[in-house]
Amino acid sequence: MRDFLPEDVRRRRHVIGVIADVYQQYGFEPLETPSVENLETLQGKYGEEGDRLIFKILKRGEGAETGQADLALRYDLTVPLARVVAEYRAKLPKFFKRYQVQPVWRADRPQKGRFREFYQCDVDAIGSTSVVVEAELLSAATDVLARLGFAQFTIRLNHRRVLAGMLAAGGVPAHLHNDALVAIDKLDKVGRDGVAAEFEARGIPFGGASLLLEFFAAVQAASASADQDPETFNRDTLARLGALVTGDGAAGVAELQEIVRLCGVTGAARHIRIDPSLARGLSYYTGAIFEIAVPDLAGSLGGGGRYDNLIGMFLGEEVPACGISLGLERILVVMGERNMFPPTLVASPADVMVVQWFAGRTDLCLGLATELRAAGLRVELYPEAPAEDNPKGWLVKQFQYAQARGIPFAAVIGKTELEAGTVTVRTLATRQDEQRPRTDVAAYLQKAISG
Amino acid sequence: MRDFLPEDVRRRRHVIGVIADVYQQYGFEPLETPSVENLETLQGKYGEEGDRLIFKILKRGEGAETGQADLALRYDLTVPLARVVAEYRAKLPKFFKRYQVQPVWRADRPQKGRFREFYQCDVDAIGSTSVVVEAELLSAATDVLARLGFAQFTIRLNHRRVLAGMLAAGGVPAHLHNDALVAIDKLDKVGRDGVAAEFEARGIPFGGASLLLEFFAAVQAASASADQDPETFNRDTLARLGALVTGDGAAGVAELQEIVRLCGVTGAARHIRIDPSLARGLSYYTGAIFEIAVPDLAGSLGGGGRYDNLIGMFLGEEVPACGISLGLERILVVMGERNMFPPTLVASPADVMVVQWFAGRTDLCLGLATELRAAGLRVELYPEAPAEDNPKGWLVKQFQYAQARGIPFAAVIGKTELEAGTVTVRTLATRQDEQRPRTDVAAYLQKAISG
Repeated sequence: MRDFLPEDVRRRRHVIGVIADVYQQYGFEPLETPSVENLETLQGKYGEEGDRLIFKILKRGEGAETGQADLALRYDLTVPLARVVAEYRAKLPKFFKRYQVQPVWRADRPQKGRFREFYQCDVDAIGSTSVVVEAELLSAATDVLARLGFAQFTIRLNHRRVLAGMLAAGGVPAHLHNDALVAIDKLDKVGRDGVAAEFEARGIPFGGASLLLEFFAAVQAASASADQDPETFNRDTLARLGALVTGDGAAGVAELQEIVRLCGVTGAARHIRIDPSLARGLSYYTGAIFEIAVPDLAGSLGGGGRYDNLIGMFLGEEVPACGISLGLERILVVMGERNMFPPTLVASPADVMVVQWFAGRTDLCLGLATELRAAGLRVELYPEAPAEDNPKGWLVKQFQYAQARGIPFAAVIGKTELEAGTVTVRTLATRQDEQRPRTDVAAYLQKAISG
Repeated sequence: MRDFLPEDVRRRRHVIGVIADVYQQYGFEPLETPSVENLETLQGKYGEEGDRLIFKILKRGEGAETGQADLALRYDLTVPLARVVAEYRAKLPKFFKRYQVQPVWRADRPQKGRFREFYQCDVDAIGSTSVVVEAELLSAATDVLARLGFAQFTIRLNHRRVLAGMLAAGGVPAHLHNDALVAIDKLDKVGRDGVAAEFEARGIPFGGASLLLEFFAAVQAASASADQDPETFNRDTLARLGALVTGDGAAGVAELQEIVRLCGVTGAARHIRIDPSLARGLSYYTGAIFEIAVPDLAGSLGGGGRYDNLIGMFLGEEVPACGISLGLERILVVMGERNMFPPTLVASPADVMVVQWFAGRTDLCLGLATELRAAGLRVELYPEAPAEDNPKGWLVKQFQYAQARGIPFAAVIGKTELEAGTVTVRTLATRQDEQRPRTDVAAYLQKAISG
């Protein structure tokens, strides 16, 4: 598990701030749940493997000696959401749109880029079956990435019922659909032959695999030659799909058509690409599914879809839901590697450092700092006063300290300045000094910083 | 442990945002540490009672059956800070000023206003013995409370070495000083007789108790009659103290004098009151101590002091440190009870809701929402379209939904508006409608909201 030193925290807050800001613009509201849930709330919800990865908390008091656990650390943000929906139903709006950015814990063996404490960033709209929900989620994700500085990215879009329709058209029996999806989900990693082998190993008729893989290849070829015009590509691909599937699958195609049409009036339009081979790993999706891909990056920056059967688990009824999970830790890594953070954000803990010149006049420095702070500036005050007025090397030492901390300016009141009622402002990078009337210093610094 | 629904989160973020903002203005930087620490890092640091209240996490894998714990949930923010200072010493600045707002966990029996997961808000400056650190911490705390809307509050200020000097002057032997401080700390709750009884029970000579309690009473009487002029009161009290104590105690009085003098150039000046009876419970303080009191409120909104022997615990050396812990949960409760939150903050998840009028034109509504969002507005879009154009009662239903959610405006494009290229904006509280050219709606709403 990681400590986040100040520079890390500033980067993380920048990204989380943009996410929160954008989703709030879409009417999503913040939710926070406790880090600790009852063990029984979590157990059995994440499969056998998941159960093993839950961090369990020892009973206190009398139970302590028995080594039993009754509480556990949050494993994801979806089960807590389902619990909240059940628990506060009467207090929540009919359409509950929430975002939640909080840590989760998994007892994985730590490895590069994988942590046992990491943040999830989930955005979900509960209570509506309308596909405008999908369109808004994709539009908001587009705004988030654009504001963070990602210019090129693709939103791969597919639909579970279309996938089922394709599998049926390929002759895959319904009871093997889940197995087939798991195989198709690996297409990116293992290629066509790998998927074909996986189909065979799972006892899925090879004819089905072959038809599907040819269809995917044809769509991919069209996609490669149609990168300039996503609209035409999407229309053509949906037409191909429409010709392939029937019944429920056709209803899925119609939903995809409507999502694409709605996204046409948002910023998401130019990023969406219908991708019939997108399967998504999780089994609980029931409708549209999507995943955000960035060029030259394996894996995704986020993904999600519609899952109408899960949120009602504690209520014993179906509650429609659709959401996206942004890969916060992933986004942070990529932005770091590609130098996408605003330089000022990362570097500087303060706008200016007030320097101490006199032996016994810290009050003078604190007075100046107070004035500059009142004007809205971020001000560091060097805490130590010298034993005598301005001894040899003393100023340089303070300037070096400020510069090492990434603070761009130093403000000095020495003997001359005190008599003249001025302040000398040093630009540390250029060692240029500027003497200003004291009443003018805040305005001068504000201009220098914003310019 | 608590769920924070959207309104709760907005309140909490408001307060945390002000705290972060102000401390950043003073050059403090954010630090975040993991929720989980090694059990051995925490154990033995909080006394016997503390050890019992630590939430322990079961070993995973082979250890699971043994019921043993190797990890634990963070119990406070001070031990993690000490660990960070030891672990990252070379990466941290010489004067490390950090604030940290994160949850901690204690296996207390839950009771009113006490939670097993709660947030601490710690601000500490590490590495300097200069009392300008104390002055800046108090000035920043003043700014925080002022910005949150607290007009009347007192910063009680005392010094551990002055307390020791007073106890020595009262004839209390050094080995009983800690016992005596514990007794004095209860003065507010148990009164003079209670403290005298406590002194006796702990075998402390009654002469000492009596002298001290008379001194406190005299100071308190002076304080009551001098509320208008804290400066004179502080000067007089420091003079009284100076006459009472010698040696180390006198050095403590001199530090208090300097802190008061420095605070004279900050907003803290009019809130500070020297209080010789302030003891603070924790044993680790070594210098100035302080506590923030609000009229008509038992207990404090925060407190802290200098503790030069604690932060170096993992380094095996002394590291000077001074800090303040703001009572975040307390502040939130008081602000809630006294209606101190800005009403807009609490109520509204969006500035405007776009209403659906047509059966098949969600794209029209989403297009308007996209335009308004691009202009910076927070926009909710009612997700469901009607089965036919504007059926009976349909608009009212949507208006009611928006109003119940605290959204002040609704935007409608109906048949008339579509033909005229306009949008009707309804002020939901007054039911007043205003038809505007579509290009003008964002500006109209922005003005209406900020006005």
